[in-house]
Amino acid sequence: MNLDYIIPNAWSIIEEGFNPDQVKASESLFSIGNGAMGQRANFEEAYSGPTFQGSYIAGVYYPDKTRVGWWKNGYPEYFAKVLNAPNWIGINVLVNNEQLDLFNSKSIKNFRRELNMKEGWLSRSFVATLQNDVEVEVSTKRFLSLDIDEVGAIDFNVKPLNTDAEITFQPYLDSGITNEDTNWDDKFWDTLSVSHENNQAFIQAKTMKTDFYTCTFMESQVFIDGKSVIIEPNIKADANYASFSYRHKVKQNEIYAIHKFGGYLVDRNHDKNNFVNEAKSVLAKATRLGFSELLNNQKNAWSKIWDMSDITIEGDVKAQQGIRFNIFHLNQTYLGTDATLNIGPKGFTGEKYGGSTYWDTEAYCIPFYMATKDQSVARMLLTYRYKHLEKAIENAQKLGFKNGAALYPMVTMNGEECHNEWEITFEEIHRNGAIAFAIYNYYRYTGDYSYIPEMGLEVLIGIARFWHQRATFSTDKNKYVILGVTGPNEYENNINNNWYTNYIAQWCINYALESIEKVREGYEDDYRRVSGKTKITHEELALWKKVADNMYFPYSEKYNVYLQQDGFLDKELITVADLDKSQRPINQKWSWDRILRSPYIKQADTLQGMYFFEDQFTTEELERHFDFYEPYTVHESSLSPCVHSIQAAKLDRMEQAYTFYLRTSRLDLDDYNHEVHEGLHITSMAGTWMSIVEGFGGMRVKNDTLTFEPKIPKQWKGYSFKVNFRHQILKVSVNQNETQFELEGDTELQILVNGESVTITPDGLVSV
Amino acid sequence: MNLDYIIPNAWSIIEEGFNPDQVKASESLFSIGNGAMGQRANFEEAYSGPTFQGSYIAGVYYPDKTRVGWWKNGYPEYFAKVLNAPNWIGINVLVNNEQLDLFNSKSIKNFRRELNMKEGWLSRSFVATLQNDVEVEVSTKRFLSLDIDEVGAIDFNVKPLNTDAEITFQPYLDSGITNEDTNWDDKFWDTLSVSHENNQAFIQAKTMKTDFYTCTFMESQVFIDGKSVIIEPNIKADANYASFSYRHKVKQNEIYAIHKFGGYLVDRNHDKNNFVNEAKSVLAKATRLGFSELLNNQKNAWSKIWDMSDITIEGDVKAQQGIRFNIFHLNQTYLGTDATLNIGPKGFTGEKYGGSTYWDTEAYCIPFYMATKDQSVARMLLTYRYKHLEKAIENAQKLGFKNGAALYPMVTMNGEECHNEWEITFEEIHRNGAIAFAIYNYYRYTGDYSYIPEMGLEVLIGIARFWHQRATFSTDKNKYVILGVTGPNEYENNINNNWYTNYIAQWCINYALESIEKVREGYEDDYRRVSGKTKITHEELALWKKVADNMYFPYSEKYNVYLQQDGFLDKELITVADLDKSQRPINQKWSWDRILRSPYIKQADTLQGMYFFEDQFTTEELERHFDFYEPYTVHESSLSPCVHSIQAAKLDRMEQAYTFYLRTSRLDLDDYNHEVHEGLHITSMAGTWMSIVEGFGGMRVKNDTLTFEPKIPKQWKGYSFKVNFRHQILKVSVNQNETQFELEGDTELQILVNGESVTITPDGLVSV
Repeated sequence: MNLDYIIPNAWSIIEEGFNPDQVKASESLFSIGNGAMGQRANFEEAYSGPTFQGSYIAGVYYPDKTRVGWWKNGYPEYFAKVLNAPNWIGINVLVNNEQLDLFNSKSIKNFRRELNMKEGWLSRSFVATLQNDVEVEVSTKRFLSLDIDEVGAIDFNVKPLNTDAEITFQPYLDSGITNEDTNWDDKFWDTLSVSHENNQAFIQAKTMKTDFYTCTFMESQVFIDGKSVIIEPNIKADANYASFSYRHKVKQNEIYAIHKFGGYLVDRNHDKNNFVNEAKSVLAKATRLGFSELLNNQKNAWSKIWDMSDITIEGDVKAQQGIRFNIFHLNQTYLGTDATLNIGPKGFTGEKYGGSTYWDTEAYCIPFYMATKDQSVARMLLTYRYKHLEKAIENAQKLGFKNGAALYPMVTMNGEECHNEWEITFEEIHRNGAIAFAIYNYYRYTGDYSYIPEMGLEVLIGIARFWHQRATFSTDKNKYVILGVTGPNEYENNINNNWYTNYIAQWCINYALESIEKVREGYEDDYRRVSGKTKITHEELALWKKVADNMYFPYSEKYNVYLQQDGFLDKELITVADLDKSQRPINQKWSWDRILRSPYIKQADTLQGMYFFEDQFTTEELERHFDFYEPYTVHESSLSPCVHSIQAAKLDRMEQAYTFYLRTSRLDLDDYNHEVHEGLHITSMAGTWMSIVEGFGGMRVKNDTLTFEPKIPKQWKGYSFKVNFRHQILKVSVNQNETQFELEGDTELQILVNGESVTITPDGLVSV
Repeated sequence: MNLDYIIPNAWSIIEEGFNPDQVKASESLFSIGNGAMGQRANFEEAYSGPTFQGSYIAGVYYPDKTRVGWWKNGYPEYFAKVLNAPNWIGINVLVNNEQLDLFNSKSIKNFRRELNMKEGWLSRSFVATLQNDVEVEVSTKRFLSLDIDEVGAIDFNVKPLNTDAEITFQPYLDSGITNEDTNWDDKFWDTLSVSHENNQAFIQAKTMKTDFYTCTFMESQVFIDGKSVIIEPNIKADANYASFSYRHKVKQNEIYAIHKFGGYLVDRNHDKNNFVNEAKSVLAKATRLGFSELLNNQKNAWSKIWDMSDITIEGDVKAQQGIRFNIFHLNQTYLGTDATLNIGPKGFTGEKYGGSTYWDTEAYCIPFYMATKDQSVARMLLTYRYKHLEKAIENAQKLGFKNGAALYPMVTMNGEECHNEWEITFEEIHRNGAIAFAIYNYYRYTGDYSYIPEMGLEVLIGIARFWHQRATFSTDKNKYVILGVTGPNEYENNINNNWYTNYIAQWCINYALESIEKVREGYEDDYRRVSGKTKITHEELALWKKVADNMYFPYSEKYNVYLQQDGFLDKELITVADLDKSQRPINQKWSWDRILRSPYIKQADTLQGMYFFEDQFTTEELERHFDFYEPYTVHESSLSPCVHSIQAAKLDRMEQAYTFYLRTSRLDLDDYNHEVHEGLHITSMAGTWMSIVEGFGGMRVKNDTLTFEPKIPKQWKGYSFKVNFRHQILKVSVNQNETQFELEGDTELQILVNGESVTITPDGLVSV
């Protein structure tokens, strides 16, 4: 389905009117999270229609057995799977003993759902007539607290409109849950105990195999017309379920409400032997504040986040909604507070991609986190990979590499590879390049070199060793070639000399050589430690250099462009514009062989390379390559349109840049790729941020200087963004006439605007 | 493990001495079958050591759910899996209440196992001392009857050597079996009933999902010193098991024996509602004859098979044993009596490759069956594919082809594709070529053109349509190219312009065009029917021709050879001779990406093409290609060495031809590929036959004439083979000095020997 039901609004995602066909999509779009946990926007009350239930705890996964038709040497035995966690949001609502269930109501009016991004909460309201003809007005509000990140809170109100009615709230916990992607009725959770006390219940459960211990908890309070009432609940508890029933005869137009607090403790942060007591104290903190105060704290916390990371767009509410949606979800997913966590491509909004770490983090997310958070957050993401270096070396060994060569996994939770398609796992080796590039990018942006001697150099050496060993010499070409790879354009597999891969391999070797030299000269102790540990020798470095200096790059004299790979010109070069629309998206319409032999590009990796290494190419070169590759690009990777948007802006093609911007920023809201029901594309949201800041704003860092070439789509009156540059906040506001720069900081800042030097004083404002 | 424990013998496979490490290998090597069923050489009595239990019924399979990490459009939802069928051979033997179990005996002496290929039976004998110190001499004989192909018979003898002993035979049926390859504890059989009557028992069971109904049955008789005795058995029967216990106090040196008859009925041949009665009448037929008479019939039946298909080799017992082993197993696997059956690569000796049909049948097996059976057998194999044409068209449609284009499945049981690796399922499309080639080959050999107008032409049209649509035009090369394929050399995936594939595609189109013309001219009714059904037009045929006439073939001017695929010369061309032996076989030592980027060839498809289309290439061309590709060929496909043997012989490299011959003929006996425990390589055994008849004998059919260029390895005194050529039997005997031709038939036969015409009269003998 392609969606267009989300109501444009600057600060909220809004759905009006109930449509069961949209439920799964909305469950994705209205997802909430707080970095420590997250959930799809499932209803609290029963729902018998099609739904995709999902509640996820950061860092909790399951090593599922790899299942392939034919085993290949080197496959990991297990892959990390994100797990649907025990349900704590559930509240069955009985009205005169009939389940409130929107899929089974006589009529539904005034259905409205809102995700308020400014304040960080999700609400829902509707009027439903049940089969028993009781008409009820329902309104709910839910959030996952940023303040106490183990807790969420629900306010659920029911008002009978046409009669008195006996209404029962049954808040429950349920650990008898399954995964959506489970084809084999597997069980992933062992419930260890179910207990309750007063109005609180606790389910202790552990994941099978990984033994992550969790305690899911809840506490409820009920209200009549806003006044707390004491109702003795009926209690039900069995092997993996606990519920309280609060039954009350509610008068017509009286509001019966429940506040439910719930959440998870994990043994990463708590003593599992004292889970119930610790859960009690977390609950005590939350209930002491109460729903309203906790919600106030939520608003304040989000206010601080927006203060640093908001992007405003004037005159284009859909564009405004799109960028805030992206920034909001990025902040819901990762807050940079836990060194063992990372950014899964679906965040907490779905199961696919296993909630694991991909090259997306280094290639797309780090710039966003560098510019909108303290630089320690980006450094934490780099450290995550440093901690996995040993496992990356083991991973390379499994594939026959030696001498400390490192191949980072394509997909990981704990440093081990956990993906099992040979063309990806073994061949999509460019990921190594993004990890090295992020080190370079971090230093370029923050000026903090210390990461390299302390940790990064070892990573760079492992990666350079890999490339040196992976390249082979072609006598025929008299060059080094890299055979049998999958580039970022995953619509080509097992190709030879993917230009992007060859280029980044060469760059990695050169950057490692340069870094070794720089550390040797400036950081003697670190150099001694690292060279002792890695045993690098002059001879080895000379061999690396030989490979880098003699790398082969496929080139077409006819088109005057680098070729995406050997043999690209053998394809039937029919542009996307000339492809029948009924065939799109090709990854849902075509068998894999047809995709592979077509010229269609999932994301243009040649352009991706020219984005990373922009300085190495003239604008004319970029333009030629853009004109050559863009027409074959289907953008079926969520990571694709943002780079095209940035490059189109650079090439002064503002209409095209704007179209790509909408595509990247509203990818999920408008469901361009027909898959939003599976979850959101979190990592590409950072690309959306880049398409404004780097694309329209033209921001770069060159020689320790922030530079801008501001442009603005004609559809907009103005836009603004803030960046945290070396501990000072620079606000950039662009309108059709001028650009304003405003500095929150204490040091004068010298920037370049369209090549001209501009000085901005602390708390001063400069218009250009 | 590499084996060398099989004792050389002209007519038997013999193992002496008991080694538990060899049990699984021997279970494969000593397998028995009769075309309708087959079994690994599992012991009848209990065995607690490592064993791979397997009993298989022809045509009985299970559609197992495809399990892949990441689904790709076009994958079949199910794949056909060969099923381990209920066990009927089991006989527990209790000696003073201790289980006879070779893995748990105090000592074992004189262990000997023999597979007598001349007469078609398997025997075993040994002396074991049990933990209770009773020493018993055991001898068994077992065969699956060719005469009554639903029955097998076992003669099991136990003689206590050092004491009197109470011995119990517990013959049983067991349908509570699993598959060796089941990782998920799946159940494949539903037992419907277990019943018994007198000394007979019956288990009716059906396969899950496919609903193949079977009745497994047994009947036993016991003997003392050869005299039938009546012992009232204890009977045990439960949900999927039935056993009789025949207990007897046996005197020292007395022989206690049991004859067990058992087997399967399937609902393909019987009314499943009357299974027990029909099983009783099958048992009555068998027991009326008794073990000895049934065994006599077995010897006679095998004698007839050998009379037509034996190959003798004088002066080289290992070579003799090898070829007979191959011919024996081919005849155990497929007898050409059932049009729904085909030849699985592992026959009835293992589970891998699902017992399904591959291109092996057309590329390797048909010549053997044409020359050693009535030509109706080969025609039945061709008809099998004709009957699957509609499904091949559906299969092509799933991959986006249209207008009746047919892509035969890579692996099938019933015409549907049942393999799920994209690089094989979607890309190993050359299989279509072998199916067309077999039609050509059948006509060339038998002179029976009728198959083409009646059935073959439709197949050829569907295949030509596929190639026409699959080729694309490369503007860059100004030629038609075939992108993204896997050739017969499966150590390259998703390559462009595999020479073999392009060549056979071109040939298929030309052969289809020629056949259409010939049928149009000579078989008007058939032409009208086929052209009406397929709606071929002149315009369409012209388009096919354009593709065939402009097909691209990668070629190296430097080496003066066709290249296996685009870019082959970019590889690091280190020959197999220079590869460290510890790295072999590479498919067990290397990860898949490393295999793919290496130059190593599983089977040399360029040479395979030059084998099929020998007439199109000069001997010098063949020699250049052989010299170029052979050094990179690791022969890790069982289908590889036979073709190299034939070509080495043609090139007068008799030492090399002889080495390849040993490798193909003793592939399993000497376990070249370290995998015999998984089962035998049945289809490549037909290649062994070719390497003698076509390789050493130099036999070809040219212009309806049999031609020979006999050669002989220096290790041999002589060899002989027989071929059924157009309803006459020609025996060819070659020694170091001359070749003798002998004709059983009624018409004079004109042949060419080394280019000279020779006339052979019926029942006459000619020496050349």
